[in-house]
Amino acid sequence: MNLPSDDALRAPLSGVRVIDLTRILSGPFCTMMLGDMGADVIKIEDPHSGDPVRHIGQGAEGLSWYFASFNRNKRSVVLDLRQPEGLAHLRSLLATADVLVENFRPGVLSDMGFTPEALKTLNPRLVVASINGYGSTGPYSQRPAFDFVIQAMSGFMSVNGERDGPSLRSGLPITDLVAGVYAAFGIVSALRARDLNGTGQHVEAPMMNSIMSMFAYLASDYLASGREPVKNGNDHPITSPYGLFPAADGEVAVAPSTEAILLKFLTALDLAHVLQEERFRTNAQRMVHREALNALIAEKMQSNTRSHWLERLNAAGVPSGIVQTIPEAFADPQVRHQEMVMEVEHPGHGVVKTLGFPLRFSDTPCRVHRPAPDHGQHTDEVLASLTAAGR
Amino acid sequence: MNLPSDDALRAPLSGVRVIDLTRILSGPFCTMMLGDMGADVIKIEDPHSGDPVRHIGQGAEGLSWYFASFNRNKRSVVLDLRQPEGLAHLRSLLATADVLVENFRPGVLSDMGFTPEALKTLNPRLVVASINGYGSTGPYSQRPAFDFVIQAMSGFMSVNGERDGPSLRSGLPITDLVAGVYAAFGIVSALRARDLNGTGQHVEAPMMNSIMSMFAYLASDYLASGREPVKNGNDHPITSPYGLFPAADGEVAVAPSTEAILLKFLTALDLAHVLQEERFRTNAQRMVHREALNALIAEKMQSNTRSHWLERLNAAGVPSGIVQTIPEAFADPQVRHQEMVMEVEHPGHGVVKTLGFPLRFSDTPCRVHRPAPDHGQHTDEVLASLTAAGR
Repeated sequence: MNLPSDDALRAPLSGVRVIDLTRILSGPFCTMMLGDMGADVIKIEDPHSGDPVRHIGQGAEGLSWYFASFNRNKRSVVLDLRQPEGLAHLRSLLATADVLVENFRPGVLSDMGFTPEALKTLNPRLVVASINGYGSTGPYSQRPAFDFVIQAMSGFMSVNGERDGPSLRSGLPITDLVAGVYAAFGIVSALRARDLNGTGQHVEAPMMNSIMSMFAYLASDYLASGREPVKNGNDHPITSPYGLFPAADGEVAVAPSTEAILLKFLTALDLAHVLQEERFRTNAQRMVHREALNALIAEKMQSNTRSHWLERLNAAGVPSGIVQTIPEAFADPQVRHQEMVMEVEHPGHGVVKTLGFPLRFSDTPCRVHRPAPDHGQHTDEVLASLTAAGR
Repeated sequence: MNLPSDDALRAPLSGVRVIDLTRILSGPFCTMMLGDMGADVIKIEDPHSGDPVRHIGQGAEGLSWYFASFNRNKRSVVLDLRQPEGLAHLRSLLATADVLVENFRPGVLSDMGFTPEALKTLNPRLVVASINGYGSTGPYSQRPAFDFVIQAMSGFMSVNGERDGPSLRSGLPITDLVAGVYAAFGIVSALRARDLNGTGQHVEAPMMNSIMSMFAYLASDYLASGREPVKNGNDHPITSPYGLFPAADGEVAVAPSTEAILLKFLTALDLAHVLQEERFRTNAQRMVHREALNALIAEKMQSNTRSHWLERLNAAGVPSGIVQTIPEAFADPQVRHQEMVMEVEHPGHGVVKTLGFPLRFSDTPCRVHRPAPDHGQHTDEVLASLTAAGR
């Protein structure tokens, strides 16, 4: 445990114990964020090889950096949940816990003896969180789920790609990660409800619902008009001009989000006068004549470099940037300033570079209390504490 | 206010008052989720045309469904924040509030007189949440930000697209939406820290940090190996086989996530024997010979329909699906069962179809307490309550 010293402010989840039955990606991402905010996260792993991510991806000195980047601030306890002794230990841990997080297929937890009723009897204050593919009820509840399949089924892929190209998955396993953040948000909310009501409850973050909640104007425009949303490449479906424009040494991303900003953009290009032309007067007309306007803009932008335009456009209040590779983004001075890459000492495995914290708290900042654990590193310590407590 | 009756359990944010200075997308998405969980959200709008999203997208009977889909569970109060009277009303509201959410460019709130120190003096228990592009400190803190530009700068676009194709934006405004969920998560966490410590604090969700936190194995593999992550289309960068395979009447998405599931997949296709071949024995070998293995799989799958394979593969425990359009996804029986499309009566504007709730709470479910407000609909009621309270 890493409780703050008496003179420090307590972290948001200080004093909260999380039992983590999840593996791979969305669940460990969720519980890592709970640990970043001060929770004591106990990661339960099988006695054989543990979380499969331990054995996936690039690494050094016997440690997968993929595993390390999703499992900081956790203790690892090995339990064989196919044996009565392992289940008894889990039961004892749940009796002492505030939160249980699982990403089994719906029904598996009940099959292990932990039905909603049994959990309520064991610990009425326990918040039980489930991350799953399609939700625990409905015709697909028993289907196995995986990020790529949810991207396909949800409609996401049908709008990701070039206008006449194939439907594409996101470059990131986005449905896993979004469901993980939602689950963490749901857990903290359920803890707050427990503070008000005295009892825990079940909270569920299905990957399918999570990504669909982000369809924004693609959803509302379809529901209002009945017209099917389509892939648009880098063109915005309802705004023009918008996209990538060619400077002398590469492309510049420009997103003039309002008429006022569009005027600033065209003024910076010495093109403000074209807004007087009938074909460019309104956004609706500019959508029709998108190519003609893009050509006028491209001609101007080719006359100078990306850095020239970035400086000039950002100074004028026009949102603009360049397409950076991941190495370029990680080397970017702003990203470095925001410490989005951290170096964490992992005893026995060297220094691991890992992503930083997305959320910034002024008084109770997220911290690395402990590096990612070795498989079963804390089994003895955690089970001994149960014995000491007479469980 | 919609407080629960005495016999009901209280929602997670019951009794929490949120002053919402945000517009467009990420901020309103954040505050809508707070309202869904029972907070009293007071949306401050300018006297002219209000939130620009009121005037964007498809709609009916004088209401943008895009606006409606991001502003349920809020009250709308018109204040002119360029006038002393408007600022005085805002100050009074903040004195009574638990949370302030803003998505101005960093520094604008201070310029309005609400520096961190002034806010602390006014209301030491206030949680102040900022959603911005790059973070409030660092060389780009003053750059205007917009989803597309953050997708470009963060590295996201560099890995989204076909292998040899252009870098593509996501089909959704993903950095806006992810930052919105993070902000909501940060706010509830800061409220919980306030319960522990007695004081509010500032919490910040930069869009750039938010999307970069989701780079998963793309980040860790790059940081460990120094090799630049690239676009992979629908191929998984570190798993083979994986992707879209052609059935007789269209494509099937298959994601065999472990060796055990791969064996189930190939067994269902009567292809398990190929795993004995040297070239397909390990994932590393299958990555090298991806095309040859994909061709063997395609040949088998073309012999039957998508629905045949979906039923057979899902029953065998192999994650699989089809690429649905957004209309197909919204009509999907699972999506309907999960109520991911809701119908909400908007007095004066008819029934609006809108996305449902991603998070499911067993005891304190998210609810639509009120439809999206008309511009300034609650100005009199809210300002009168301030007067009644002597502010």
